[in-house]
Amino acid sequence: MMRSVAGGPLAPRGWKAAATCAHIKGSTGDKLDLGLLASDFDCAAAGVFTQNQVVAAPVIWCRRLLPGTNIRAIVVDSGNANACTGEQGLRDAEAMASAAAQLLGIDSSQVLVASTGVIGIPLPMDRVSAGIRQLRLGADADAFNDAIMTTDTRRKQAALAFDVGGREVRVGGVTKGAAMIHPNMATMLCFVTSDAVVDPAVLPGAVKHAAAGSFNLLSVDGDQSTNDTCVVLCNGAAGNPIIRPGSPEARLLEEAIDEVALSLARHMAADAEGATKVIEVRVSGAASDAEAHAAARKIVSSNLLKCAVHGNDPNWGRILMALGNAPAQLQEDRVSVALNGLRLVAGGRTTGFDPAAASKAMDAPLVIIEVALGLGSGAAMALGCDMSEEYVTLNADYTT
Amino acid sequence: MMRSVAGGPLAPRGWKAAATCAHIKGSTGDKLDLGLLASDFDCAAAGVFTQNQVVAAPVIWCRRLLPGTNIRAIVVDSGNANACTGEQGLRDAEAMASAAAQLLGIDSSQVLVASTGVIGIPLPMDRVSAGIRQLRLGADADAFNDAIMTTDTRRKQAALAFDVGGREVRVGGVTKGAAMIHPNMATMLCFVTSDAVVDPAVLPGAVKHAAAGSFNLLSVDGDQSTNDTCVVLCNGAAGNPIIRPGSPEARLLEEAIDEVALSLARHMAADAEGATKVIEVRVSGAASDAEAHAAARKIVSSNLLKCAVHGNDPNWGRILMALGNAPAQLQEDRVSVALNGLRLVAGGRTTGFDPAAASKAMDAPLVIIEVALGLGSGAAMALGCDMSEEYVTLNADYTT
Repeated sequence: MMRSVAGGPLAPRGWKAAATCAHIKGSTGDKLDLGLLASDFDCAAAGVFTQNQVVAAPVIWCRRLLPGTNIRAIVVDSGNANACTGEQGLRDAEAMASAAAQLLGIDSSQVLVASTGVIGIPLPMDRVSAGIRQLRLGADADAFNDAIMTTDTRRKQAALAFDVGGREVRVGGVTKGAAMIHPNMATMLCFVTSDAVVDPAVLPGAVKHAAAGSFNLLSVDGDQSTNDTCVVLCNGAAGNPIIRPGSPEARLLEEAIDEVALSLARHMAADAEGATKVIEVRVSGAASDAEAHAAARKIVSSNLLKCAVHGNDPNWGRILMALGNAPAQLQEDRVSVALNGLRLVAGGRTTGFDPAAASKAMDAPLVIIEVALGLGSGAAMALGCDMSEEYVTLNADYTT
Repeated sequence: MMRSVAGGPLAPRGWKAAATCAHIKGSTGDKLDLGLLASDFDCAAAGVFTQNQVVAAPVIWCRRLLPGTNIRAIVVDSGNANACTGEQGLRDAEAMASAAAQLLGIDSSQVLVASTGVIGIPLPMDRVSAGIRQLRLGADADAFNDAIMTTDTRRKQAALAFDVGGREVRVGGVTKGAAMIHPNMATMLCFVTSDAVVDPAVLPGAVKHAAAGSFNLLSVDGDQSTNDTCVVLCNGAAGNPIIRPGSPEARLLEEAIDEVALSLARHMAADAEGATKVIEVRVSGAASDAEAHAAARKIVSSNLLKCAVHGNDPNWGRILMALGNAPAQLQEDRVSVALNGLRLVAGGRTTGFDPAAASKAMDAPLVIIEVALGLGSGAAMALGCDMSEEYVTLNADYTT
């Protein structure tokens, strides 16, 4: 019923994108650093944003506009986060929205803004404004994706289609980041587009649920950016019967948004700075889903475990150590642990496994750690990546 | 009034130590791996231990005995943590206490036990017992210190003296760890000795306060061992008038214990795995001391900041990012940040400092980050270290 389609964020009908090189970091190269994602029609839209108390200006701008019913576009720069820039930063975010609105012949209140890059330095608004004037909308999702990338080494897109009342509805998405952005802090940006006709009341819950089941399961290093942004926009171009809150069709749309977001989160884990492997931690048998979630997050966030996974070291003591530090009920002699299908721990003790075989099982791009607590029916998953020497090297470089 | 003295844990009167090589890890080398610290007289003693839910057997043993009034010794092995070893582990910890008690002609309930090293593997009790029988008490604190070290690269001792009623009272201490122990998880052990005559009721609060103001300010990588142990033991050999709870003399003793613990914590930060610098974060102007503490801990624990300090990168955005993630009230436009005395941020914005000068100021063994929040009078300090490529290398090695 749910099927993959090509096109990423431009898979849904009525969506276009543009990208240009505005030299935001002042470099003489030709890296695309300014992008625009735009809909032919007004969108119902909702978003979730960073929980950091230090909030970048574009996030403040987006929070004012969302949830909304007449959003038309998102303008994005990479190279400058427009964070810790005070009143000037807010004026600059609004000026970006205005410039994009002028280009599209719409109102600035219909344009979301996202930024990622260095913080504490005002945007070079002359170059940003000139860049926005150069943008020409078209069907090139890849160029838009390139324009929002920083230390990302590959594009991250996904799209799904399903039917509602005989009409095909599509949900697409594009994301960047998850790792830290050289030379400054991380930002994750995720834009989920759709052509669904939908009651706007469906979206705030849907985007929250999708983020909880994808990006919020992802831990690269425990640091949270000032700019994190995840928005969903539905422009209605599919012409389906309107999707009402609580309906089976709403659940279908939510499922598609969830799947697109989870797929993008997996892309992010794989492309995290210095990462060579994705770690997926599945906790079951917890007293509650919330406790399973806390335990899975704690395990996937442990620097020690991340280093062990990097070295193919079946060091299960680090898994139990991290587990014991999580706010989750635990009975040590009921814990079992498996690593890519190989059982290492049963009843809290070693199974006497062959260390060489376990190390070999870990030598894979995806390391799945299954932890069963034997207490209840709570279950959850968390995503992360290993930690390599390159992570340190990338993040120890001078901003100077 | 308070003065430094030589001798570390053996500076107080009536204390002796012993060490031997018991080949606990089965190696053929001659690394000292079994130590004994013993008092000629019964001690009032109290301890604080790991908050991890997965608790090693020796910690369970010590918790049963403390606080206590007739403790005489601590027997310690390095090489095997005796953690995740079930009922057998508890029997082994008790057997270690028994063997040491037999050697000293005392009861096993007078002997504390501490272990550090690989987890999930039963202690080789034949070698441990034989090793304990070989121990001969003497005045060599360094050999005891060596026997409790794992990946530590240097000894960590401190001692102070002060007067009570015309008699000199001494407080000494020795510690190991803070970083992760190859090939397994970290353990910090700290033993504070004293010859004070003291009402035992003084000690539980004193050890808690000392740990809060030293080891609990220290973050190497956010992971907490199953074996962490900090105990204070006073044998009364100084012959001072008894120190009563709440008296000025009790405050003096507490101060000495605090200072010894803080000095040992600084040693630990400097010797953390892969560390090349100590980071000291001082937060002031917070709404409360507790919020200042939370903010300082969050900053010193940020992997991104640790990497930036490693690379002499005056990347203050990472400090604000970490601050914004802490559970502490924050008004961005009131924050100021200084780095080794150089002001980087005032009123939440860059001071326009010279990046090369700031980078040069960071090129030092101690990097002091001062963060003023401008909200109240809450203040706190946290200790940590930078993160280097070597940290990853050390912790990615095979246990296999």
